[in-house]
Amino acid sequence: MTDSPHESRPVGRGRSSQDTQQGIRRRNLARVMHAVRAAGPLSRAAVASHIGLTRAAVSTLVDDLIRWELLEELGPERPGRVGRPGSALAVSGRGPAGIGAEIGVDHLAVCAVDLTGAVRARAGRRGSNRGRPPEAVAEELEALVHKVAAEAKREELWPAGLAVAVPGLVARDGRTVVRAPNLGWQDTDLGRLLPSPLPLTVDNEANFGALAELWLSPGTPADFLHVSAEIGIGAAVVVDGAVWRGTRGFAGEVGHVPVYPDGPGCACGGRGCLEQYAGEEAVLRAAGLDTREDAVALLGERAGAGDEGARRALRNAGAALGIALTGAVNLLDPRTVVLGGALAALSPWLLPSLEAELRGRTTGPACPVSVSRLGSQGPLLGAAHSVVRGVLDDPAGVAERG
Amino acid sequence: MTDSPHESRPVGRGRSSQDTQQGIRRRNLARVMHAVRAAGPLSRAAVASHIGLTRAAVSTLVDDLIRWELLEELGPERPGRVGRPGSALAVSGRGPAGIGAEIGVDHLAVCAVDLTGAVRARAGRRGSNRGRPPEAVAEELEALVHKVAAEAKREELWPAGLAVAVPGLVARDGRTVVRAPNLGWQDTDLGRLLPSPLPLTVDNEANFGALAELWLSPGTPADFLHVSAEIGIGAAVVVDGAVWRGTRGFAGEVGHVPVYPDGPGCACGGRGCLEQYAGEEAVLRAAGLDTREDAVALLGERAGAGDEGARRALRNAGAALGIALTGAVNLLDPRTVVLGGALAALSPWLLPSLEAELRGRTTGPACPVSVSRLGSQGPLLGAAHSVVRGVLDDPAGVAERG
Repeated sequence: MTDSPHESRPVGRGRSSQDTQQGIRRRNLARVMHAVRAAGPLSRAAVASHIGLTRAAVSTLVDDLIRWELLEELGPERPGRVGRPGSALAVSGRGPAGIGAEIGVDHLAVCAVDLTGAVRARAGRRGSNRGRPPEAVAEELEALVHKVAAEAKREELWPAGLAVAVPGLVARDGRTVVRAPNLGWQDTDLGRLLPSPLPLTVDNEANFGALAELWLSPGTPADFLHVSAEIGIGAAVVVDGAVWRGTRGFAGEVGHVPVYPDGPGCACGGRGCLEQYAGEEAVLRAAGLDTREDAVALLGERAGAGDEGARRALRNAGAALGIALTGAVNLLDPRTVVLGGALAALSPWLLPSLEAELRGRTTGPACPVSVSRLGSQGPLLGAAHSVVRGVLDDPAGVAERG
Repeated sequence: MTDSPHESRPVGRGRSSQDTQQGIRRRNLARVMHAVRAAGPLSRAAVASHIGLTRAAVSTLVDDLIRWELLEELGPERPGRVGRPGSALAVSGRGPAGIGAEIGVDHLAVCAVDLTGAVRARAGRRGSNRGRPPEAVAEELEALVHKVAAEAKREELWPAGLAVAVPGLVARDGRTVVRAPNLGWQDTDLGRLLPSPLPLTVDNEANFGALAELWLSPGTPADFLHVSAEIGIGAAVVVDGAVWRGTRGFAGEVGHVPVYPDGPGCACGGRGCLEQYAGEEAVLRAAGLDTREDAVALLGERAGAGDEGARRALRNAGAALGIALTGAVNLLDPRTVVLGGALAALSPWLLPSLEAELRGRTTGPACPVSVSRLGSQGPLLGAAHSVVRGVLDDPAGVAERG
């Protein structure tokens, strides 16, 4: 555990190791990393005062963190700059990096993010993954991961872990895609298909998108509902700075909340689910457009050009979103709702009707809705940063592996 | 923090005091209490092996707990029972007790529960509280609290705190009833109205009902959705053994989840909310009955006697509950849904249609629904036990106050 309000790991139940010397040291290493990350560059004395430890204790911790390439010293005091910290510490731009990957319905993407949060390498490919065998997609993704890892290596970075965002439900084991209807995948164990020796985490794209929001968008509260879309509509329930995953890992299926219970049948087995009104295919159909790649761009283009059919389709989709979100807000009382992914790009045409429903169905002030500035980059960045947060939250752990 | 899987207090963010000697001692005192409560009577040696401390350390802790009247010794070893623990420890039936109270729409109730979990005193009054001034209700409640505390005192118990269940939304301050529409209360500060010097916690009845389920019904998982009703319909979202309260304390408003978005207007400002189909007044109207006290008993009686009108009304209410719960289950992925309060008594007529909707709208196995055995006693018991859990979770805290 660290003092970070945005822990990337859920709070564990077993606390037996908490009070051991080693447990305390591990936590203090993390506190040093988070202090330097948040407020650095900092001198050792400043770190000590930030986290309430003695300078001597901090120095021992810092020596290890430098040796592990997690912190770096910015060099000796420059003459003439009286009072400025002499040998300031910063989070290292070399050493461990997080590899994020995204398996989209219409694309693959991989990136490397260093401990400072900078994206240092990228690779990707456009093209549909619908109905492709998982083995073929995994093979292609693995090649992109290799390419990014090689590029990172040239910059003295080594991959500390791989996190993969997928458009589907992921089991609590963090590697099995239980159901990704728009890919046609079922019970697909990505841990088996990706031969990479890196520690692997697979998660739903909405969850990684929400974490990106939490970590990268200043002012994001610790409790919010993140709703995003690619082809389907997913949500992440963020509680106390962590994604609430649910019993089986399936929480956040806002796309299958009934909106009009007697409405059209849905692939999930239900009727009148949100996806039947605000999912990409439903909106394209309502706008009189064919299903195709880059549908979001096309919809935005048409609506922006004043096409009344596209605008009406998006207005109705926004209203359906507003009805489903009214239920979600009543159940969860989040601080805000954040629209991410494709919904961010289409928000000018979705928001008015969405907010009208939320407002009209709520006594008192309605839950505020904001639009993600990360948009479709959220899940990929969230994946890479989840690895980085893992390093910051347990520097000793990565040193053991590195 | 303790090792209990069902902590009654949420996990705090600030952990700065965690690693101090005193912090560790406080936690160990709690671990001893929980071990004896869960597995007692236990000898000191057995406690030590349960919680992984030395016998000497445990003895020091136990001495304090006995002095504070939180544990008691069951007496010297009985001759002829070789190998049996000599001076076994048990949770004390004297000393601190939790006072629970319930302000219902149609009743008031108060009880005292000792540390062993036994109800030791009770008082109550039937009669409508609709539209009564909060001052009058609080005065009457205070008199019942006094009566129960006096009865408890005759049994060598002293009240460690007062917890009050109310049928409305409670602010995160744990004392202000923000809105209780069926009482006609708004922004009512019970901390001001109840002059009792006891530490006070006010919470929604559905939340206390859920905690009672968690603590008192064996086999209840740490993650579930508890839905209950008196006049309105409320839910508690239990996450990792704690009630999820939401940003303002308003989480769990399942009664205002839209079921048929174009349905009748609701007092909340929405349309077609669950309460319009499954709230007590709606069901009574659908069954052709007048609004009155003991409406639940009347409905159960009629339905049990085969009255087709009452049965149809309950069947339709169950279907509406099933639609709203489908949305909740999709968002939260709880382990189970538990029906409590009035819903428990009416479950024979609600469950078939409720489960049919849940099953029909879910791919794969539907979320299991169970019925609370505590029924309408849940909120009162949950309130009293929340005080008891507070003592078990921080024995040193109550000793300081006691």
